[in-house]
Amino acid sequence: MSHASLSPELEAVVARAAAAAPAFAATAPEDRARALVAVADALEGAKPRLVEIAARETGLTEARLTGEVTRTAVQLRLFADTVVDGAYLDARIDPADPGFALGARPDLRRTHLPLGPVINFSASNFPFAFSVMGGDSAAILAAGCPLIVKAHSGHPELSDATAEVASTALAAAGMPDGVFQLIHGREAGVAVLQDPRIQAGSFTGSIRVGRLLADIAANRPAPIPFYGELGSVNPVFITADAIAERAEEIARGYLTSVSGSAGQLCTKPGFVFVPEGSALPAAIEAAAADFAAEHRLLDPRIAQSFAERRDAILGTPGVRTIVPGALRFDQDGQGWATPTIAAVPLAGFRAGKAALVEEAFGPLSIVVEVPEGTPLAPLVPEFFEGNLSGTLHLGAAEADGSTPNADELRALVAALARQVGRVLFNGWSTGVAVTPAQQHGGPWPATSNDASTSVGSAAISRFQRPVAYQNAPTTFLPAELRDDNPRGVPQSVSPAGESTAWGARWR
Amino acid sequence: MSHASLSPELEAVVARAAAAAPAFAATAPEDRARALVAVADALEGAKPRLVEIAARETGLTEARLTGEVTRTAVQLRLFADTVVDGAYLDARIDPADPGFALGARPDLRRTHLPLGPVINFSASNFPFAFSVMGGDSAAILAAGCPLIVKAHSGHPELSDATAEVASTALAAAGMPDGVFQLIHGREAGVAVLQDPRIQAGSFTGSIRVGRLLADIAANRPAPIPFYGELGSVNPVFITADAIAERAEEIARGYLTSVSGSAGQLCTKPGFVFVPEGSALPAAIEAAAADFAAEHRLLDPRIAQSFAERRDAILGTPGVRTIVPGALRFDQDGQGWATPTIAAVPLAGFRAGKAALVEEAFGPLSIVVEVPEGTPLAPLVPEFFEGNLSGTLHLGAAEADGSTPNADELRALVAALARQVGRVLFNGWSTGVAVTPAQQHGGPWPATSNDASTSVGSAAISRFQRPVAYQNAPTTFLPAELRDDNPRGVPQSVSPAGESTAWGARWR
Repeated sequence: MSHASLSPELEAVVARAAAAAPAFAATAPEDRARALVAVADALEGAKPRLVEIAARETGLTEARLTGEVTRTAVQLRLFADTVVDGAYLDARIDPADPGFALGARPDLRRTHLPLGPVINFSASNFPFAFSVMGGDSAAILAAGCPLIVKAHSGHPELSDATAEVASTALAAAGMPDGVFQLIHGREAGVAVLQDPRIQAGSFTGSIRVGRLLADIAANRPAPIPFYGELGSVNPVFITADAIAERAEEIARGYLTSVSGSAGQLCTKPGFVFVPEGSALPAAIEAAAADFAAEHRLLDPRIAQSFAERRDAILGTPGVRTIVPGALRFDQDGQGWATPTIAAVPLAGFRAGKAALVEEAFGPLSIVVEVPEGTPLAPLVPEFFEGNLSGTLHLGAAEADGSTPNADELRALVAALARQVGRVLFNGWSTGVAVTPAQQHGGPWPATSNDASTSVGSAAISRFQRPVAYQNAPTTFLPAELRDDNPRGVPQSVSPAGESTAWGARWR
Repeated sequence: MSHASLSPELEAVVARAAAAAPAFAATAPEDRARALVAVADALEGAKPRLVEIAARETGLTEARLTGEVTRTAVQLRLFADTVVDGAYLDARIDPADPGFALGARPDLRRTHLPLGPVINFSASNFPFAFSVMGGDSAAILAAGCPLIVKAHSGHPELSDATAEVASTALAAAGMPDGVFQLIHGREAGVAVLQDPRIQAGSFTGSIRVGRLLADIAANRPAPIPFYGELGSVNPVFITADAIAERAEEIARGYLTSVSGSAGQLCTKPGFVFVPEGSALPAAIEAAAADFAAEHRLLDPRIAQSFAERRDAILGTPGVRTIVPGALRFDQDGQGWATPTIAAVPLAGFRAGKAALVEEAFGPLSIVVEVPEGTPLAPLVPEFFEGNLSGTLHLGAAEADGSTPNADELRALVAALARQVGRVLFNGWSTGVAVTPAQQHGGPWPATSNDASTSVGSAAISRFQRPVAYQNAPTTFLPAELRDDNPRGVPQSVSPAGESTAWGARWR
């Protein structure tokens, strides 16, 4: 097949990925695990050099970037264990059953296989953890899918340096040629996404670009899944009890969460609902001096967008500042900011909804002051679409569910759970733990596809598909479906004869 | 919110579904199980009346329809047990870990929650099992999502009768008002699919209509998942050994599979690859007299399409008939058919690919005769896109993997597994067992979304989304995530301190 729409260079990239797919799918899980760990070790070995490039290209602090390399290595190592553990295969075995409720049934065994070549579009704000060898890339390689990464234009030199480290490590670990390749440029990324040999896409970035790419994936002659992690404003609700018990602690946690990484995190708490007349604004104001360090924003375009959003918010009727913050541009067009905390009464928030609820990507957050007696749960669907997270800060007695407002709090938690991927209690949504139980997702526009997560080991399921084998001789079965279970993965085996009793206990 | 695009009747339907969502999501799994079993029992209780209507509206035989009601009831009962078993929740618990590799981590617990209101578009060819209370409906209700069914225009009276039986049973079982509603008309279905309160769609039908609906779902202001089970031609490969050992058995199995339900099944074997010069065509011809009963096709439109496809296939150069079959139209425009089996050499199949590989929905199948020495695995991607199934018939020694062609057969199995949802050995793809390990899906155009199955209990995952709770007090946790696990569901609990060892054994 020729693919006229690709340049010769891109055609070679996609052809290599497609050619690598069968061999990569057939690698032993232990070998994929070794390769992922080798990449992790190599990245940590190159840490000083990579962090130096990243700091220069992104303006993020060395402390943050150093931690991010460690996180990236930990992610790769978590996926190494995940691949071998095999729970994600959801291996199911229904032995042949001559007494099946609908007549004799054959032996059926179901597992998950890699999708094939995948393109991952890197993020601007995580130059390691959601970039060339970040979480998506780790999940794609762990799943056994050849990976093409589209570098983010914000850190091209770091992308090339990271790719070289990773390529060397993957080759040394014996992975097939073509399992990992890097490309540059949005047009190149779009062309690859449209190629029929590509079986899925992943992305971390803005709603606007994510929507563009999701539409391209959905409207191909053969549509493919597109896992975009897009925008989120992460509403927070704080009760009067919580503020009465620990206003200063909450204020400092809030400012830490808003100012970290110059607020350029998809999990930054964008809106904090507090009772009207509470002590929290004063506590925030009092703590603000400790969070007044100026940080550079990622690039001039992001800084310009932030300036516009900040002006629009501060210019909305009813909005006042608790912490005014500042934003200046240097001679290179780079923006430098200190945190801004605004406040608005609920009535003003409602009146200014169109101007206020959109994400402000940068160190700014809005406190919404809610009159006593306002039901909280309905505020969630009134103001927000899908979000990555929603948070509730409770007083000690409220956490027991024994206070008079317990039903209202339960309704609020249910309302949040209907619209977000992660519901937090007494914490802050920034800092997303990389673990098996993490869920970093949510309904549109938090993600373009809410069937999985983009952080944590469950992310591997995005890049595999289920396949069943019927009456397969052992020699043709994947190892995880054999009776002797040589890989020792979890297998769910249906008991013989159960079908005739299905549902009987619910009659 | 008003939704100007809906008629008052449809607005009321969608509003009822949306209003029911929180209460339905909060029902105890045992109560949903009882409701599903009550629907199953009620359908079986109404079987004679329903089958009479179905036979009149669809032309399918009473025997087939009676069996289909039983299958529909078994599906509902399987989902009743599935809901309570709770494995589909994939409950994960990461206890708080002060020694986590990236710094102290909070307690994280992940489960799956219902998506909200779902619309299901019924199939024409399964008036019970993939219609008003069919597999998709069972999965949607089991997941805790309010269900709106768009009736298929081929059996409107049956749809109303089934809906009445189901509504009565659901109400008697105490399910909230609005958990199940029926609508008629394609325009109504499209309008509901576009409504922002609808969170997912499912469909069984043609590629053309499925694509139309999938595009609508993907291009909404807030895109939603759309699970369409579309077209499939189900390639079959039969080795020389298999034919030498059991030509007559294979011929009879093939004819049974092609003629059943007048060939109007998405799993009908459309293409059978056999060695050139084999005895199978003669065996098929010899057995054909036992499969010459005339069957009515579902409706005049389907009959007309079948007539056109049949003419196109039989008129393609190189195609001959093994079993000529027949097709006639009665005075009502209904088509009546007997099975047609055609044959074509591989060279002719290749030359006539454009005319031949498209699905012929009805009792027709094509034998492709492959010259000795032709590698089989490359034929799969050469001729086919995604399919629901792929089949291999082997000789006894070949099943041991000990014959000289073992590597070639393994390559063929791998090629099929890359493109189909179910790989069968020594069987026929029609007759899809309803079990936990079934996989009825496959890459486009077998489905519009290959992340799950449309038959079997794993289908429930299509209608739920993952949600994590961070540091949640017990009183705010779903039961399946509590330490005391009152529902007794499978929980996967991460060992404390494991993170510092992640990947270590792969170094």
